[in-house]
Amino acid sequence: MSLALLFFDEGCAEQLSDDRFLAAMARFEGALALASARVGLIPAPLAQVIDKVSLHARFDARALAREGRAGTLAIPFVRQLTAQVAAVSQEAAGHVHAGATSQDVIDSAAALCLKAASERLLGLAARVGDGLVNLARKHASTITVARTLMQPAAPLPFGWKAAVWLSMFARAHAALRAAAARACVLQFGGAGGTLAAFGARGDALAAALGEELGLPPSRITWHSARDGFARLGTETAILAGAAGKMARDVALLMQPEVAEAAEPQASGRGGSSSLPHKRNPALSVLALEAAQRTPALAATLLAQLTPEHERGLGQWQSQWFTLRELFCSAGSAVAAMAEVAEGLHVDAAAMSANLERSCGLVFSESVATRLAITLGKARAHALTEKLCRVTVEQKTSLIEAMRADAEVAGAIPAAELPALFDPHTCLGTAHAMIERTIAAWTEAKSSSRETAA
Amino acid sequence: MSLALLFFDEGCAEQLSDDRFLAAMARFEGALALASARVGLIPAPLAQVIDKVSLHARFDARALAREGRAGTLAIPFVRQLTAQVAAVSQEAAGHVHAGATSQDVIDSAAALCLKAASERLLGLAARVGDGLVNLARKHASTITVARTLMQPAAPLPFGWKAAVWLSMFARAHAALRAAAARACVLQFGGAGGTLAAFGARGDALAAALGEELGLPPSRITWHSARDGFARLGTETAILAGAAGKMARDVALLMQPEVAEAAEPQASGRGGSSSLPHKRNPALSVLALEAAQRTPALAATLLAQLTPEHERGLGQWQSQWFTLRELFCSAGSAVAAMAEVAEGLHVDAAAMSANLERSCGLVFSESVATRLAITLGKARAHALTEKLCRVTVEQKTSLIEAMRADAEVAGAIPAAELPALFDPHTCLGTAHAMIERTIAAWTEAKSSSRETAA
Amino acid sequence: MSLALLFFDEGCAEQLSDDRFLAAMARFEGALALASARVGLIPAPLAQVIDKVSLHARFDARALAREGRAGTLAIPFVRQLTAQVAAVSQEAAGHVHAGATSQDVIDSAAALCLKAASERLLGLAARVGDGLVNLARKHASTITVARTLMQPAAPLPFGWKAAVWLSMFARAHAALRAAAARACVLQFGGAGGTLAAFGARGDALAAALGEELGLPPSRITWHSARDGFARLGTETAILAGAAGKMARDVALLMQPEVAEAAEPQASGRGGSSSLPHKRNPALSVLALEAAQRTPALAATLLAQLTPEHERGLGQWQSQWFTLRELFCSAGSAVAAMAEVAEGLHVDAAAMSANLERSCGLVFSESVATRLAITLGKARAHALTEKLCRVTVEQKTSLIEAMRADAEVAGAIPAAELPALFDPHTCLGTAHAMIERTIAAWTEAKSSSRETAA
Amino acid sequence: MSLALLFFDEGCAEQLSDDRFLAAMARFEGALALASARVGLIPAPLAQVIDKVSLHARFDARALAREGRAGTLAIPFVRQLTAQVAAVSQEAAGHVHAGATSQDVIDSAAALCLKAASERLLGLAARVGDGLVNLARKHASTITVARTLMQPAAPLPFGWKAAVWLSMFARAHAALRAAAARACVLQFGGAGGTLAAFGARGDALAAALGEELGLPPSRITWHSARDGFARLGTETAILAGAAGKMARDVALLMQPEVAEAAEPQASGRGGSSSLPHKRNPALSVLALEAAQRTPALAATLLAQLTPEHERGLGQWQSQWFTLRELFCSAGSAVAAMAEVAEGLHVDAAAMSANLERSCGLVFSESVATRLAITLGKARAHALTEKLCRVTVEQKTSLIEAMRADAEVAGAIPAAELPALFDPHTCLGTAHAMIERTIAAWTEAKSSSRETAA
Repeated sequence: MSLALLFFDEGCAEQLSDDRFLAAMARFEGALALASARVGLIPAPLAQVIDKVSLHARFDARALAREGRAGTLAIPFVRQLTAQVAAVSQEAAGHVHAGATSQDVIDSAAALCLKAASERLLGLAARVGDGLVNLARKHASTITVARTLMQPAAPLPFGWKAAVWLSMFARAHAALRAAAARACVLQFGGAGGTLAAFGARGDALAAALGEELGLPPSRITWHSARDGFARLGTETAILAGAAGKMARDVALLMQPEVAEAAEPQASGRGGSSSLPHKRNPALSVLALEAAQRTPALAATLLAQLTPEHERGLGQWQSQWFTLRELFCSAGSAVAAMAEVAEGLHVDAAAMSANLERSCGLVFSESVATRLAITLGKARAHALTEKLCRVTVEQKTSLIEAMRADAEVAGAIPAAELPALFDPHTCLGTAHAMIERTIAAWTEAKSSSRETAA
Repeated sequence: MSLALLFFDEGCAEQLSDDRFLAAMARFEGALALASARVGLIPAPLAQVIDKVSLHARFDARALAREGRAGTLAIPFVRQLTAQVAAVSQEAAGHVHAGATSQDVIDSAAALCLKAASERLLGLAARVGDGLVNLARKHASTITVARTLMQPAAPLPFGWKAAVWLSMFARAHAALRAAAARACVLQFGGAGGTLAAFGARGDALAAALGEELGLPPSRITWHSARDGFARLGTETAILAGAAGKMARDVALLMQPEVAEAAEPQASGRGGSSSLPHKRNPALSVLALEAAQRTPALAATLLAQLTPEHERGLGQWQSQWFTLRELFCSAGSAVAAMAEVAEGLHVDAAAMSANLERSCGLVFSESVATRLAITLGKARAHALTEKLCRVTVEQKTSLIEAMRADAEVAGAIPAAELPALFDPHTCLGTAHAMIERTIAAWTEAKSSSRETAA
Repeated sequence: MSLALLFFDEGCAEQLSDDRFLAAMARFEGALALASARVGLIPAPLAQVIDKVSLHARFDARALAREGRAGTLAIPFVRQLTAQVAAVSQEAAGHVHAGATSQDVIDSAAALCLKAASERLLGLAARVGDGLVNLARKHASTITVARTLMQPAAPLPFGWKAAVWLSMFARAHAALRAAAARACVLQFGGAGGTLAAFGARGDALAAALGEELGLPPSRITWHSARDGFARLGTETAILAGAAGKMARDVALLMQPEVAEAAEPQASGRGGSSSLPHKRNPALSVLALEAAQRTPALAATLLAQLTPEHERGLGQWQSQWFTLRELFCSAGSAVAAMAEVAEGLHVDAAAMSANLERSCGLVFSESVATRLAITLGKARAHALTEKLCRVTVEQKTSLIEAMRADAEVAGAIPAAELPALFDPHTCLGTAHAMIERTIAAWTEAKSSSRETAA
Repeated sequence: MSLALLFFDEGCAEQLSDDRFLAAMARFEGALALASARVGLIPAPLAQVIDKVSLHARFDARALAREGRAGTLAIPFVRQLTAQVAAVSQEAAGHVHAGATSQDVIDSAAALCLKAASERLLGLAARVGDGLVNLARKHASTITVARTLMQPAAPLPFGWKAAVWLSMFARAHAALRAAAARACVLQFGGAGGTLAAFGARGDALAAALGEELGLPPSRITWHSARDGFARLGTETAILAGAAGKMARDVALLMQPEVAEAAEPQASGRGGSSSLPHKRNPALSVLALEAAQRTPALAATLLAQLTPEHERGLGQWQSQWFTLRELFCSAGSAVAAMAEVAEGLHVDAAAMSANLERSCGLVFSESVATRLAITLGKARAHALTEKLCRVTVEQKTSLIEAMRADAEVAGAIPAAELPALFDPHTCLGTAHAMIERTIAAWTEAKSSSRETAA
């Protein structure tokens, strides 16, 4: 997957590589042998041979894939592994994969790899969140303008905008952590799902196997109950979406006509192959790319919740690949936004200038609210609309239009007018919202640590 | 949406009807007036007028929709409501919607309706779960065959199959409840999102408004942070998928060549307009219909996580409709499966007969496991494959093939053979898995009650 | 579907309403009777009774939906229709729906309604295309700046931009027309699909029925071959996407910091419930809304290509509703863009001013291309990059930076410099591209007329 | 992408590999040089150097991907290529990529690779179609039962079932060919899209470049008009769906309780890692896998129709990867079904036996149709329903139930009864439908040859 790394986080891709996946499959077989020995099903020395070989086994992934098209990856895999065990001990070879079924090893290997990849993803998300905490605090009083429907609306602090981004990451961090914990569990049911091959020892074996692998056993086999993987997939898509939301805003702010913020520069970043002057929002492109591709990938997992009977046709077999794509894409997005959160260039002067350029129109809510005290809301709204129209038509400013208006004069003392246009008096509960969001982030991160501990 | 009720749960559709939505919007405006009075922003008597009119206000939905295409539903809505308030008190009319923005009323109304619809959906899911608990217990020892890749695999109890379905509903019930609690919160930010129109009183007002509506306030405005709605949408899709999984299996079991289970009959259900003899799996069709349509609807919400700046173009405006479709569809699926869970006809004799028809082949794992004790796993697997081939080619049974085989004779005493083909000795940990899953369901339901209490 | 009209084209909604659909179902039954009479299966006078009653039959849609949940809409529908026929002639009533199956009447009714809705959609698309032809011609020399990755790139005529939009509509118009022609065909197979109930007269009957309905017969029954509907669905999504692309650009151009274009104004359009000064891109919102919701709806149809055997569980039953949603949404988007195409306000002065504001940087390709003649491409690119950097750092213009640069002086005569910054000399093949695209549009529309003729 | 080959067609994967893609990019640069020389922009000898180096250039894909994350793959690619050219001729190196932009080389390289992959896919589809023609003809009179809603409905020839599958492939083959022809065109617009860097020579250069590459030039730049790629994507999804539909039916027919058909066997195919007796529908799994994953991938392309201005953020950059996934998946599905179409084992005896097992109920339409002649349709339907009920309750057969019924005796001479249960008299227009479908297939394939010729 070389070129795919253009839009993949390399850290996630590493955890979810073919090699890691095959190693995890081997680890499952090694752990199964050890666990089987622990519950008395096979002799411990043979189990140790299997385990040892599994740790260093090598596989020909391309050959496995070709043969796997005949039914399941697990058959050629077990054959290749068994051959390597047999080279050490024919007797041990007879116990490889005993009692397990294809899906047990494939789903459990996926769980192992996804668990590691989730840690990577959470780490990247934590960088974004921490960066946004700084931005939110630092720019708690840096005034920009709210833009609704891509039109200037009302003044607000840029730190509040960062806090809205942060609120998504706080929820996404907690939710991804929980979804990973629920999805990355042992799959172990044997041929039919009931661990029949192990008689009364199934539960003890499952517990031992889970312990060996560091994966909690599940209450009941999930061969055909794929909701855990579906939730994990939707949460990665939501995380990519959070990154995409931030990127959307940054790209809009980087338009030179707006120029209120800019991605951190790095040598060679954002250039063009044809235009020497370009400074493209290259990091935002990465996040938006992922945010456009992950929703449909998640939908695939949602559409695969209805496999046939005890093992379906075409769902579990490839969900591993869909999740790999989701994690690597989400990782790409979040890694890009980590750089942005940590290094965003905020141009307070440009924000101020853009506010100026609105000729005071973005204070129309402030004006209307004040006028309503004297004139009632309906009249105030109508009057403000008229004043705004006058402002635009006469290319004046709203405050001048107010000064020239008789009805305004009757409603508000002239001396009060400038205060209506002071953005710092128009921030409402922005600061409290910022602080509450930062607290939510701190909580999300620390509950994460507890779980990990 | 009359014909749409073919594939909508009527209970959800009722909670999410145009009328209920407009009533919820009106309730928002009434509550806003009351809350504004509580924090001293408007006179209490005027607030009471607004509230009272809001409770019984009537709207022309079609006209609202037409006018709403000019920008937002809220403008003509507030106009119609204000007119009705003005008919009672001109003065009160001046305070309608004061300080709120379109999205505040639309998102909060959606939250109110979705909260009620979530209760409906959880109630339906509880009926499925309770029904499955009964099926799982009652058929804990009714032997059927596991079918993997739609081929008979190994014997297992039908109750275990019901428990796998139940495991999905247990997780879906808990997750939907949590997602609804997080998504159905107050939206209140005013024009820019910071409640600027209310100065220092914004937080107190938001708290009072939330109290009036029975919606918790959010830490920060979520005008542009749509992850809560996205999670609610994916959870409804997962619930529909759980219903679809169950329906998939039931429809397969109802094939007359299999005939192991049948949907409960009801007058007129499952007939055909052209074939007098048909008994169609009509309830399963409903669940599968929903399971095929909900994943993409959820994907729409995932794709809408990147609105522009403080209020986007084309996301929040219609998410209400997407969620409505999701809830009504999921409701349709779950209601259908509630009937199935409560009344499924299970034909133990047919299960037994199908097991017989397999000529013992479905006990091949049991045979191979036993042979492995004497011969080692590799030889045992190869020998069992040979025996299975002989069984099929000579149209005999696996036990007869074993009796005729010299190697088997050397490996297993003949008297031991019948026990290998006794399904009741081949159930592994099925019973423990069933009981653990029932416990999980009980837990999911009771934590739900706690939350509600 | 009252409030849904916020995001539905009313014309499409009308053609695809419950009432029209039930009327189309009735028309199918009437036509089936007439066709049966033509091939001698039933007496002509009875057929005429059925046909006549069908034309004016009335149905209780809500009751039909409720009863239809027991299996299929067609059963209660045929019952209600038969009762109305029986009120006129008991004998005629005995021949209603004879030999047809549920899916025949439902799919054919869908085909009839979708055919009409396609005409509506093509008409709207034609308005967009014609409007864009005018814009492309009128602004063939109105210079704006290409924006790549949302950064100014190089000058180009606004008419070229309109022509790129037009190119999508030209292809979408032709493709939708073709997809509708292929999808809106007669469904008629009877219970199993082979018209077995009609013996040797099946083909003649199908031909006569198709003639009565104005729907071409298909080569073979498509009960379970749903690709025609899938293609129709993807084409409506592509049309919505074309509208969305145009809307995306218009919304970006309407940002007040850019202000190069504006949607046509209409009374009340684009206002805000909280901000008196707002001019929102209300039409663009409608198109972007649809462009975000249609892809997933189309995916549902793609995911429903694998129904079971001769009539599946949960696909054809509701595809009608999915297509209705797709058509109404696409119609909403295209209708909005028709208004924009016909009335877009283009501000050439603002375009010119924005070009100025770039300090000549958007001519960097022109500069580098000229320098390359003397210095070779690599050196020219590097030198131009340096000049751009100087321009930005010293807050000068690119032409001034060039005048101050010794290497430039050696490479290009000073007198040649201004021509490099004349946008009208930098348009390449823009005009030829525009004309070719207009020709493609004309062709697409006229081939459409031929087909219709 | 080694393990991914489990679910990828290796032929498509080869055409769309990283190496082929980079080679196609190099080929674009070589062709651009040659074309530039042909229209007099650069000296022919230098162009030949570039072309020659391009043919054998080597790239470090992983490094390109890493550097490409800084903005675009094209920049490091051009750098690596230029270095290789420079090693031969410094002067030639100065002309590499002259006047082109990143997207020109990336989109055109994608078009080149997808054109080759389309040929591969069409070839696979042709194998399926030809195989189905044989099945349809060979089994034109092999009677099986139509199954609607997974319940036996009425007799029909298995060849007709194959013809329904064929009808999808006929349409898909023609549509994919057309979509590929429209999508695989030259992308060439330069920085802004208007070929400004080439002055008046743009069109001639584009024509020459298209000729060199074997790609038709487009009427206007499609940097931001992505509908061609979207249609190509939806057509590959529809082709995968056609394969999936066929697989769905085959998997259902392979259930041992049904056993009417079986995939061709191959050594090792369809085995199980735990169950020695299994014969899994391994080829059908491959097709169903793809049919479940492709719809969402196609939806991604539909969702990417709205890029910003002249070059968007995150759409075109990765559509290549999405299309690669779509082609490889569709190829996997179609290749699997080619084997099935060519080697499906059809068990006419099992079909006949299953028909028998229905106790004549699947002839209920035939019975009701005949009774209707005497009794009218309504009475006939009711009487047949009663007879079916009696058949089931008394475990008799429908013909016996009819013989025992007085009303039947009055309506139909006893001697006529057996004919009603002769499947060969109940085939309606099945044969004509089969022949028409085969003709449609022949037409689809031959028009394909014409286009290619």
